[in-house]
Amino acid sequence: MAGEFSLIDKYFAHRQQQRKDVILAQGDDCAIVAPASGTHIAISTDTLVSGTHFLADADPAWIAHKALASNISDLAAMGASPCWVSMGISLPEVDEPWLERFCQAFFELADYYGVQLIGGDTTRGPLAITLTVQGSLPEGKALTRSGASVGDWIYVTGSLGDAKAGLDVILEKNISDDSALNKELERRHFESVPRVLAGLALRDVASAAIDISDGLISDLGHILKRSNVGARVDVAKLPLSTELRAFIKDDTQARQYALTSGEEYELCFTVPEANRGQLEVALVNTPFTCIGQITGTEYLELHENEQTLNWQLGGFDHFKVNQ
Amino acid sequence: MAGEFSLIDKYFAHRQQQRKDVILAQGDDCAIVAPASGTHIAISTDTLVSGTHFLADADPAWIAHKALASNISDLAAMGASPCWVSMGISLPEVDEPWLERFCQAFFELADYYGVQLIGGDTTRGPLAITLTVQGSLPEGKALTRSGASVGDWIYVTGSLGDAKAGLDVILEKNISDDSALNKELERRHFESVPRVLAGLALRDVASAAIDISDGLISDLGHILKRSNVGARVDVAKLPLSTELRAFIKDDTQARQYALTSGEEYELCFTVPEANRGQLEVALVNTPFTCIGQITGTEYLELHENEQTLNWQLGGFDHFKVNQ
Repeated sequence: MAGEFSLIDKYFAHRQQQRKDVILAQGDDCAIVAPASGTHIAISTDTLVSGTHFLADADPAWIAHKALASNISDLAAMGASPCWVSMGISLPEVDEPWLERFCQAFFELADYYGVQLIGGDTTRGPLAITLTVQGSLPEGKALTRSGASVGDWIYVTGSLGDAKAGLDVILEKNISDDSALNKELERRHFESVPRVLAGLALRDVASAAIDISDGLISDLGHILKRSNVGARVDVAKLPLSTELRAFIKDDTQARQYALTSGEEYELCFTVPEANRGQLEVALVNTPFTCIGQITGTEYLELHENEQTLNWQLGGFDHFKVNQ
Repeated sequence: MAGEFSLIDKYFAHRQQQRKDVILAQGDDCAIVAPASGTHIAISTDTLVSGTHFLADADPAWIAHKALASNISDLAAMGASPCWVSMGISLPEVDEPWLERFCQAFFELADYYGVQLIGGDTTRGPLAITLTVQGSLPEGKALTRSGASVGDWIYVTGSLGDAKAGLDVILEKNISDDSALNKELERRHFESVPRVLAGLALRDVASAAIDISDGLISDLGHILKRSNVGARVDVAKLPLSTELRAFIKDDTQARQYALTSGEEYELCFTVPEANRGQLEVALVNTPFTCIGQITGTEYLELHENEQTLNWQLGGFDHFKVNQ
């Protein structure tokens, strides 16, 4: 780490084991890494700004988790294995308890995924964090958004809607009488877990993939647009957690939460008919659900028991993919 | 580019030729690049924040130049060849003329060095830019700060002090009667050029290298500290431009400018006696000057004609390297 805040650097320096493919980490003009031969590198950058992505008094542990998890989730959606991260961070002042809490959460998550902080820059300024995370994957094995074909089946991992329900609790917009339930949904909002192992397992199975960061409707829409196809999704098949069903009793509302909840970090992916058997084996340790099928139309259609729905979900329902 | 500012994305998307080693640029969860086999990757991250590194009304072309040039200069100092850049940018509002001017300068410099923007994130927030630039270099050929040995000769490229003189002009702190001279020094402050070709040429010649971003004294100090050596520098040998000599008539003051001027993007490097012949060949197209020699002391000593100097230069003079 360079920059005028040399005091801060000690919080970020040498807190992790050195990966074998890191030749040089912090302390020189650049970091040096050694990609394994025959691998490609997947690279994702996310910026979080105080006041835009979180409140100034947000828990620094949560900011750290959100910043790193959202980037790792992008790697997961490509089928890449997380390796290295660079951090640009601006802080209005040197607040040591804040830094310690931020770093503890950051390095805990980084260690869990085997990602090494290789360098960055610390500067004085309004609170903001930009991370660039890199992962490796075998040549030609990337899971892109553009590979879906007509007839492919559409799947999601885990369950959907909990992050949005958790946000309701946080914003005190919609609260259950069950305080343990509120607490659990709040936790799920803050601690969504990227599906890295599922991404790796899907490399030879899925035709396209994306992580659910803006909401299923919006993110599946990206696959459809890039693949130049449409889709039919059966809302009755959307995977809803027991907690979400307890929090939102109304079927329609619960399903609409599942369709629009962002920052879930679940994967949405498509699988050709011929690979459905392999899928069962590949994701033996990950819950997943088939929610629909890719079509040759230009539309994303929602239906329930063959009845087409015309839900208004932020303008995304029944929308034309290529405008 | 992802994020809520989709309008902005058009300024950054597809303005450059695709490099052959870029498999996937913007538009998916990650970018994908293909490093050549047998190469290592050098990675540098810099953050520039409005109010800390530049004024809010600074020319966006200059901000773009400064952000990219400082990162490319870090690659040059490692002997790496620039390849790819990721950008996290926060903007308070969508200001199209600002963006167009920023992008024009950014892509002009990026194209000059063959660096492709592969992705990033645009968000609403206080004006700030974080770039992560990556370059390639043959395995084991990185020019680090830690390779200097006792007896190695110390060199710098180009001339030193112009950037600081240019800053004087900008801040109206010290202005010449010659307005063309003022203008030229101001231009040099804003348009310092990273020494990429010199860095590449020094791979098999230099024992250590750094780019001069904080001032020669400070940056040579980093080499000494990491290499665990001292140095003797002859201030009479410091390369000063004709313009600096016209701007600052006093010898001592001009030399002190050369020792402390930051953001020069010249290289400071060390060369073993046995490689001095190769150096003449390697840098045939780059001006360079021998300014001193690495010593076995723990000090950076300044001298002139065998007389040791005790200049007070921000606490860095005659300083103990390992404190």
